[in-house]
Amino acid sequence: MSEKKKIAIIVHSGTIDQLLCAFILGSTAVAMDWEAHLYFTFWGLMMLKKGEMDKAGLPATYKHLEEHFLKKLGEMNYPTPYEMLKRMKASGNLKLYACTPTMEMFGIAKEDLIPEVDSLAGAATFLDVAADADITLKI
Amino acid sequence: MSEKKKIAIIVHSGTIDQLLCAFILGSTAVAMDWEAHLYFTFWGLMMLKKGEMDKAGLPATYKHLEEHFLKKLGEMNYPTPYEMLKRMKASGNLKLYACTPTMEMFGIAKEDLIPEVDSLAGAATFLDVAADADITLKI
Amino acid sequence: MSEKKKIAIIVHSGTIDQLLCAFILGSTAVAMDWEAHLYFTFWGLMMLKKGEMDKAGLPATYKHLEEHFLKKLGEMNYPTPYEMLKRMKASGNLKLYACTPTMEMFGIAKEDLIPEVDSLAGAATFLDVAADADITLKI
Repeated sequence: MSEKKKIAIIVHSGTIDQLLCAFILGSTAVAMDWEAHLYFTFWGLMMLKKGEMDKAGLPATYKHLEEHFLKKLGEMNYPTPYEMLKRMKASGNLKLYACTPTMEMFGIAKEDLIPEVDSLAGAATFLDVAADADITLKI
Repeated sequence: MSEKKKIAIIVHSGTIDQLLCAFILGSTAVAMDWEAHLYFTFWGLMMLKKGEMDKAGLPATYKHLEEHFLKKLGEMNYPTPYEMLKRMKASGNLKLYACTPTMEMFGIAKEDLIPEVDSLAGAATFLDVAADADITLKI
Repeated sequence: MSEKKKIAIIVHSGTIDQLLCAFILGSTAVAMDWEAHLYFTFWGLMMLKKGEMDKAGLPATYKHLEEHFLKKLGEMNYPTPYEMLKRMKASGNLKLYACTPTMEMFGIAKEDLIPEVDSLAGAATFLDVAADADITLKI
């Protein structure tokens, strides 16, 4: 049993504003030497398919701001979501889960996913991890 | 005071991707003999009106995928949200709350709601339940 | 270290249905003499700009209901989001944070924000507060 603090996040959303929210929290957590457990499901899981994450846009409500938003991030040299994810992974404190019911629902195979995924897992795994976490969130 | 583990979820969303997220977590929790407390508010509460839950569609951002998504669920013989809810209820481990401020706001009466609702309750009830839970989420 | 119960909410959304969800929970919490910690980021942070909060509308999925919804709230004399926020603040139990990475991303300065903001803070502050909370949610 680890003595590190722990955050467990369900990443259900696949838009860039939500991925950044999850990844800023996750990056900050691992930098504080916490464990970050990110469980990707539904539209979030779609973004774990190879080549998809950095194509994420804004949701319908804010679609009209998308071009300006992405341009602004570029001008700031803000890391892309996938770059953030790889940095979190390099810390050794990130555990990345892909939701198996979603994979079945959308016909996604393990080899379709980015190699950073640690584990294909159902909801029971998330519940066990989250029950032991200091912070639980659904994004 | 129960010794069972406990998950407390605010179901604010009323789209099928979000209902499935809440119900997969809830179904898994009750199958693990946890207590699942689902507090329905706003668009989620709308789905507790008789006959509404299985009409849920996708949100605007993913509306173009709705027909394919619903067809896929049908081909998989995936249980509908209402079927999932009734199975959770049958476990004896689900407690279902309808948010009274939302009912007032939208002019919804108790008799408009499905019979599986256990309790009409305000936010104070949710806070008391959630403060004692192992996992808290807002969906 | 306070002995009060504590709720920590990330307010990522900026639509009125989500602000009301956050503020009903927050108002109820402070009325129960809990501490409420609201950390505003992304579209939520936009709503902390002076004059913005009470212009919040519904998200794209429910845009067609917006006129009716706002009219209904007016007829009920429902407090506006900003009124709710000021009442929470008056309780002395609310702590309001503005997310500094979002401020940089959107070019927002401290003087653009409503005076009720207690603290400009990064994600590390939120994680520290939330790790000690009884309930954590992302809205």
